[in-house]
Amino acid sequence: MADQKPPVSFIGLGAMGFGMATHLVKQGYAVTGFDVWGPTLERFAAAGGLTASTPAEAVADKAYCVCMVATPQQAQSVLIDSPSAAITTLPHGAVVLLCSTVPCDYVQSLARQLAALDRADIHLVDSPVSGGVARAADGTLSIMAGFASDAALAAARPLLSELADANKLYIVAGGIGAGSNMKMVHQVLAACQILSASEAMGFAAHLGLDLGAAMDAVRASDAWSWMFEHRTPRMLTAFKPVASAVFIIMKDTSIITSEARRAGFATLMTSAAEQVYFAGIGRGFGPDDDSSLIRLYAEGKGKAGPVYGVAESEGDKLALVVDLLKGVQLCSAAEALAFASAVGLDLDQVFDLCINAAGGSTMLQKFGPDMIKAFGEGTAGRGWAVQQGEGGVGLEEIGEKLKAAVDEAQRLKAPLFLGNQAYNVIRLALQTGAAGLAAGAVVKVWAGKSD
Amino acid sequence: MADQKPPVSFIGLGAMGFGMATHLVKQGYAVTGFDVWGPTLERFAAAGGLTASTPAEAVADKAYCVCMVATPQQAQSVLIDSPSAAITTLPHGAVVLLCSTVPCDYVQSLARQLAALDRADIHLVDSPVSGGVARAADGTLSIMAGFASDAALAAARPLLSELADANKLYIVAGGIGAGSNMKMVHQVLAACQILSASEAMGFAAHLGLDLGAAMDAVRASDAWSWMFEHRTPRMLTAFKPVASAVFIIMKDTSIITSEARRAGFATLMTSAAEQVYFAGIGRGFGPDDDSSLIRLYAEGKGKAGPVYGVAESEGDKLALVVDLLKGVQLCSAAEALAFASAVGLDLDQVFDLCINAAGGSTMLQKFGPDMIKAFGEGTAGRGWAVQQGEGGVGLEEIGEKLKAAVDEAQRLKAPLFLGNQAYNVIRLALQTGAAGLAAGAVVKVWAGKSD
Repeated sequence: MADQKPPVSFIGLGAMGFGMATHLVKQGYAVTGFDVWGPTLERFAAAGGLTASTPAEAVADKAYCVCMVATPQQAQSVLIDSPSAAITTLPHGAVVLLCSTVPCDYVQSLARQLAALDRADIHLVDSPVSGGVARAADGTLSIMAGFASDAALAAARPLLSELADANKLYIVAGGIGAGSNMKMVHQVLAACQILSASEAMGFAAHLGLDLGAAMDAVRASDAWSWMFEHRTPRMLTAFKPVASAVFIIMKDTSIITSEARRAGFATLMTSAAEQVYFAGIGRGFGPDDDSSLIRLYAEGKGKAGPVYGVAESEGDKLALVVDLLKGVQLCSAAEALAFASAVGLDLDQVFDLCINAAGGSTMLQKFGPDMIKAFGEGTAGRGWAVQQGEGGVGLEEIGEKLKAAVDEAQRLKAPLFLGNQAYNVIRLALQTGAAGLAAGAVVKVWAGKSD
Repeated sequence: MADQKPPVSFIGLGAMGFGMATHLVKQGYAVTGFDVWGPTLERFAAAGGLTASTPAEAVADKAYCVCMVATPQQAQSVLIDSPSAAITTLPHGAVVLLCSTVPCDYVQSLARQLAALDRADIHLVDSPVSGGVARAADGTLSIMAGFASDAALAAARPLLSELADANKLYIVAGGIGAGSNMKMVHQVLAACQILSASEAMGFAAHLGLDLGAAMDAVRASDAWSWMFEHRTPRMLTAFKPVASAVFIIMKDTSIITSEARRAGFATLMTSAAEQVYFAGIGRGFGPDDDSSLIRLYAEGKGKAGPVYGVAESEGDKLALVVDLLKGVQLCSAAEALAFASAVGLDLDQVFDLCINAAGGSTMLQKFGPDMIKAFGEGTAGRGWAVQQGEGGVGLEEIGEKLKAAVDEAQRLKAPLFLGNQAYNVIRLALQTGAAGLAAGAVVKVWAGKSD
């Protein structure tokens, strides 16, 4: 591919798509872009791209098509349903990289539709991305790719390699849709950790802490997560610039919970987060940066009449914020890994992806390996009672510290949607009363058989 | 007691206390009232009561004291801590009926304080009430009474009988604090069912249903609950009159969750409700009628951009609302009974109390007996897989119907805090995948041992 770079069509030039498409232009590809928004096409032309006025026109005669629209409905329209859909002109044997974040269910239905339309010759590749606009424009994204065949993988890999960081192209076993499942599991962490940043900082506000001090304390602790690191600074700058809107994470969250219902899996943490996202949307916060959801938590300060917290020193209060987040991140990590197991993903690959991407957290780093080992041995749902965690930290200790945070939030009448859920999940795991249960054993709640 | 009615002191003449105290006046008691709010004392005098300017003055020389303040902090102040507290003048062997809704923890600490102050002669009776202002004024309340001794019971029963309906005076075994535990368990149902009325009607609004039609459909279905019956009419009259403020149910909800944490019990449903109550308080809705929380759900309609529900007919939409509530009420009933079992209450008595009070629901009526039987046999946490519910309704069916409601709410971007939680709880119970599991088996989540 180094010498002869094939022409590529690119459908969907939003923030991520524009970055990816212009990166390909810089790498020497002839890229024909399509977007419904005219000014974007003009910008793309100015950046050296070619433009088309319909999907059909864009993809005609190109062996490669990248589709980076926002929703399954849009993908369905541009690829199949509209009168000038890509399907009408895609050449025989073309590779279609569906890079949008969509449910596995949709990707699989798309493959079935292509077959039903007698276009099984098209190599559909399920390749959602992660990493944000800057990495899109750098060609250093994380990409999770699922394939129907080795031929599809062979045909797609060169182009995927242009878009992904060399160490972050994940070929996901499990056939078409597996890439979407991998992205979905990563987004369990994203959905919970984005909201937990607002929840923790809102709690800090109720506690009367300086938000900058709270931010620093969390970052220096085991409560660290990539999302906390990246969201909290914008809470100090009036939620500007808008890096990722509430609408975006809401959309990904709904993919998780709807696929979980399809799989019969209980997304206790993600569902709790989803309802708060809907509440935020209902307030009109949808287009705002997702860090702005701290408003849902902090606005109540002073509205409940006099409240009587018991934490007095700044150190005690900071510890409550840290312990809240540690409990939430532990349970988010457990939910992500248990869900990954339920949909048949390789947990080592899930861990490697998440820990090096926006889903990363110290709690996942510390306790994920214990959980993965238990799934590998078939003991995730039991057997934990006789173990003590590698890190020497017991589940009961994490639960007790989280309880102190939840107790104090209750005194302050501060909502902790995720903190209370995490506490109750830990209680379910501790239901046996077993002392010395390892922190990772919280995964029992999802993996356990209750008979 | 018929001829010689003893003088009684009454501390706390709020809405409930005023009704109870004036009822005693009408029954011929000389009642000396105390309240911090002067105008209330004037009203009480106009209704034939005597008044006092301090708790100590009110209780001096009276063998009976009824305390009906709003919080444990107020009880502590008027009974023990203030310079003119009741303790300073209560005669030897006096009966103190603490009718406020307070945590078991507090009642027990109060008994310990009396002993430490060398006033174990006082017969403290733990006797929270339920039934609302009209029944308070009629002397037909439900009262749940816990006693330290048979002597205390014998001394207190005549006065309790004046305040309670003949069939609704519950003598609760388990010593001092047991009455508060009984009330607390009842309030699990109240907390979940009050909010579920707003959640279901808010969902109806998102579905585009006429709220009056939705109200009628639920009332005629197995989704009926006492709270739904009493709350929803006020949603059609701008939340007027204010019958019970959000602050009141928030307070009771926090008693449940804090006592649950003390007991190591996971209040999955009640904790979810509590966070929404805090969110409502944070909006400034605390003094408003609790039916007004429909605002938190309905306000988002139209704010998420175009949404695409799939339910088309009015009948299909009404069924979704009904199925949402059935799932929520089933899980609320299971949480209440499991918590009652965890704190050692007699489940038959719990059932009899709740089903005849504001906690009543058709789902509790239909499936509670199965759950109680399983607790009695020690099989609540297991053994269900081989049974089919008495009513012939399986847990999987209830879960599937609830799933349809949750799916549609997700399409409409409507938050269902309780509906999603109930769905996930049912999924946890179904984790074994056992077909034919009885509806009552959802209680496994709380009662099961996962090893």
